[in-house]
Amino acid sequence: MPSANASRKSQERPREIMEAAEDYAKERYGISSMIQSQEKPDRALVRIRDLTVQKADEVIWVRARVHTSRAKGKQCFLVLRQQQFNVQALVAVGDHASKQMVKFAANINKESIVDVEGVVRKVSQKIGSCTQQDVELHVQKEGRATVNQDTRLDNRVIDLRTSTSQAVFLLQSGICHLFRETLINKGFVEIQTPKIISAASEGGANVFTVSYFKNNAYLAQSPQLYKQMCICADFEKVFCIGPVFRAEDSNTHRHLTEFVGLDIEMAFNYHYHEVMEEIADTLVQIFKGLQERFQTEIQTVNKQFPCEPFKFLEPTLRLEYCEALAMLREAGIEMGDEDDLSTPNEKLLGRLVKEKYDTDFYILDKYPLAVRPFYTMPDPRNPKQSNSYDMFMRGEEILSGAQRIHDPQLLTERALHHGIDLEKIKAYIDSFRFGAPPHAGGGIGLERVTMLFLGLHNVRQTSMFPRDPKRLTP
Amino acid sequence: MPSANASRKSQERPREIMEAAEDYAKERYGISSMIQSQEKPDRALVRIRDLTVQKADEVIWVRARVHTSRAKGKQCFLVLRQQQFNVQALVAVGDHASKQMVKFAANINKESIVDVEGVVRKVSQKIGSCTQQDVELHVQKEGRATVNQDTRLDNRVIDLRTSTSQAVFLLQSGICHLFRETLINKGFVEIQTPKIISAASEGGANVFTVSYFKNNAYLAQSPQLYKQMCICADFEKVFCIGPVFRAEDSNTHRHLTEFVGLDIEMAFNYHYHEVMEEIADTLVQIFKGLQERFQTEIQTVNKQFPCEPFKFLEPTLRLEYCEALAMLREAGIEMGDEDDLSTPNEKLLGRLVKEKYDTDFYILDKYPLAVRPFYTMPDPRNPKQSNSYDMFMRGEEILSGAQRIHDPQLLTERALHHGIDLEKIKAYIDSFRFGAPPHAGGGIGLERVTMLFLGLHNVRQTSMFPRDPKRLTP
Repeated sequence: MPSANASRKSQERPREIMEAAEDYAKERYGISSMIQSQEKPDRALVRIRDLTVQKADEVIWVRARVHTSRAKGKQCFLVLRQQQFNVQALVAVGDHASKQMVKFAANINKESIVDVEGVVRKVSQKIGSCTQQDVELHVQKEGRATVNQDTRLDNRVIDLRTSTSQAVFLLQSGICHLFRETLINKGFVEIQTPKIISAASEGGANVFTVSYFKNNAYLAQSPQLYKQMCICADFEKVFCIGPVFRAEDSNTHRHLTEFVGLDIEMAFNYHYHEVMEEIADTLVQIFKGLQERFQTEIQTVNKQFPCEPFKFLEPTLRLEYCEALAMLREAGIEMGDEDDLSTPNEKLLGRLVKEKYDTDFYILDKYPLAVRPFYTMPDPRNPKQSNSYDMFMRGEEILSGAQRIHDPQLLTERALHHGIDLEKIKAYIDSFRFGAPPHAGGGIGLERVTMLFLGLHNVRQTSMFPRDPKRLTP
Repeated sequence: MPSANASRKSQERPREIMEAAEDYAKERYGISSMIQSQEKPDRALVRIRDLTVQKADEVIWVRARVHTSRAKGKQCFLVLRQQQFNVQALVAVGDHASKQMVKFAANINKESIVDVEGVVRKVSQKIGSCTQQDVELHVQKEGRATVNQDTRLDNRVIDLRTSTSQAVFLLQSGICHLFRETLINKGFVEIQTPKIISAASEGGANVFTVSYFKNNAYLAQSPQLYKQMCICADFEKVFCIGPVFRAEDSNTHRHLTEFVGLDIEMAFNYHYHEVMEEIADTLVQIFKGLQERFQTEIQTVNKQFPCEPFKFLEPTLRLEYCEALAMLREAGIEMGDEDDLSTPNEKLLGRLVKEKYDTDFYILDKYPLAVRPFYTMPDPRNPKQSNSYDMFMRGEEILSGAQRIHDPQLLTERALHHGIDLEKIKAYIDSFRFGAPPHAGGGIGLERVTMLFLGLHNVRQTSMFPRDPKRLTP
């Protein structure tokens, strides 16, 4: 049920559309496409002040603001407003409206502009709260204009008051809490790492420069070096939560210039899988905790943004990169053994994995060495592979991690192989000269985990005050 | 007992010296002052290779590195090294050494340089582990050269391996954990606030500038504006833990350019004391939690840096600013009613409060309006006072907080009174135009709380990788 002017299926809301497949009224409601004067539909729009008993039983269209809305069981009462006139509208489950359509109506934000088709009905008792007291509108079709995301973000304080936003950020608070609770129970120590650093640790691209008294400094792109130094300082298992800065001019649904990193680093005994499995289990504990403690919030968000519950396996599914390549090739994708995954291929792989294993969460292990940073430990049994992994939720990467090279000699060789100026990473290499245990770790993007757990489609929805190349306010 | 060349009483370690008051051997050990060729004491330094049975029963001085140390009950065995020669030294509780002196010896870091006075004693059984197998040194006096703090920080990875550092940062992890645990139990929501901001929110001084693509941006001096926006967005009780940046050229024992802020903001019903008491109780819960769960860590730190256990009252002592003034004046300090507290006066006040109320933690309420920022709510009953407070640990400020003005009209007036350019704080004032509940909050410095709880004397000891005007590495 997109209304007549909303027949374009939004590419951004595939799950909502999937869910709507079983909805008999699905053609009768939805988000209207932006009017760009493409068509001239032969449809009169009636003024609210003209809605009187003279129009009783007529089917009319009206465009108005949602003044108030009140859902009650199988019906939703809206008060629609045009300037100082308003009328009551009723969306009730029946021939014209489905349960989903009533839910949709109930969740339209106040002050939104809607196009509504309805039958004017005389009421037996005057509606004291409206200017049009003798009639009400029985809604048959309804289209809501999308509120532009930038408008919402520009007025973030008001936008954060909506029940959806409240639920999103209560759940996000829960993710942080569960992350720490799980890790503290596992014996990890929380550390605080500096954000202002003297040299760009990972080569120098995409780093913000800071004026530091009479010199320049940089904003840390990740706490990795400091996490590793804590391992060298014998803290054994550490985590941190803090801002991470990327001066990348990426304007996508999933990139921010400042995001919150949930970072882990851990010494291991014999195999980096000890660490990888600990990280995966931490995420599983988060998913379980959210589903146990945040059902209300999940349902609130689902009302506005329907999506399937997040599925995961215990223990977490681990696929090797070569297995993923085989699945993609079987699906018709052409890729070389050492090619990295493109975003569309990651998403396709997510769908293939979901079909085959029924999980929205999995580990992709043993990435080609060629596509990973210089400090990644090569696989001793296959020089083209590495001891590195990504983790995915609903087909999108949420964590990148690896065993790090803890031997200064090998680290130097690998840096040279990557053409990195050794002078610039001297401090990094030196930190392993006093003896470092084997270790591995990874960094999780908080906003991505929130977005993908809830099946949302833009990371700006899960950052309270998002920062991207074009947005620095509020 | 500082050794002869350490008779200067270090001003940086008053508590250690206080504790040493009851120590009968206190003149016999301690930290040596730096040798700057001021004196030429008539004291021969013997070479370790010359310590043989020929010297038995002689009292000699030796300067050496601590190769190993091993404490066992009332004695401590040290192996002292000079190049390839070494000798066993024994510090045992008795006429010449007290319990404290043995403890001091046991906690000297390996590789430290020490000056030791002792009697050479022939041993009945050869000491196989030393080059000087036939004698050992019975220590009577001992001075350790201070290891320069910068040297320690330059080599932080190694410094963090010491048991003292390990204990300090395990305890710091505990502070964060207790802070969040307490607040989540109180119904607070954790928020994440951006660190890169478009305008300097509090006037513009002391802000770091960041190059942001083609423009400039700034590093947030506090999350205050964002905490307040969350209150305007109806989150009611929020907290955050994150880096705070101050471009202040302060080179003191308690200032850092980047530190970790534990921030709270909360809407209240009728009186800002509702919030102030919630914050004080949160700190009390942290102190209790630390004393319950981190005794081992506290004792480990105390071994190297002795101090009295941290004392606090329940409920927390609240003094009004005018009461503090009266106490200071009684102690001979001259201060005007609207003067701010200097650092020495804060410390003196801390001592007076400790004497009178036996607490190391208290609230100072109702600061003069004149010394607080423009957004501080004036006291409606006394125009010279404000609804603001600081909290102190061992006489040093660890939190500053206040009721904030939530009325845009009054906020504008107060900004004008302070001569602030309204254009620069427009976004801040505007955020209260959509309706804001009365609210108050405060920000706690994590490194200061750690330092003062443990009775340490420099905030660089409680920051893993401290940042100050002169230090950006490691």
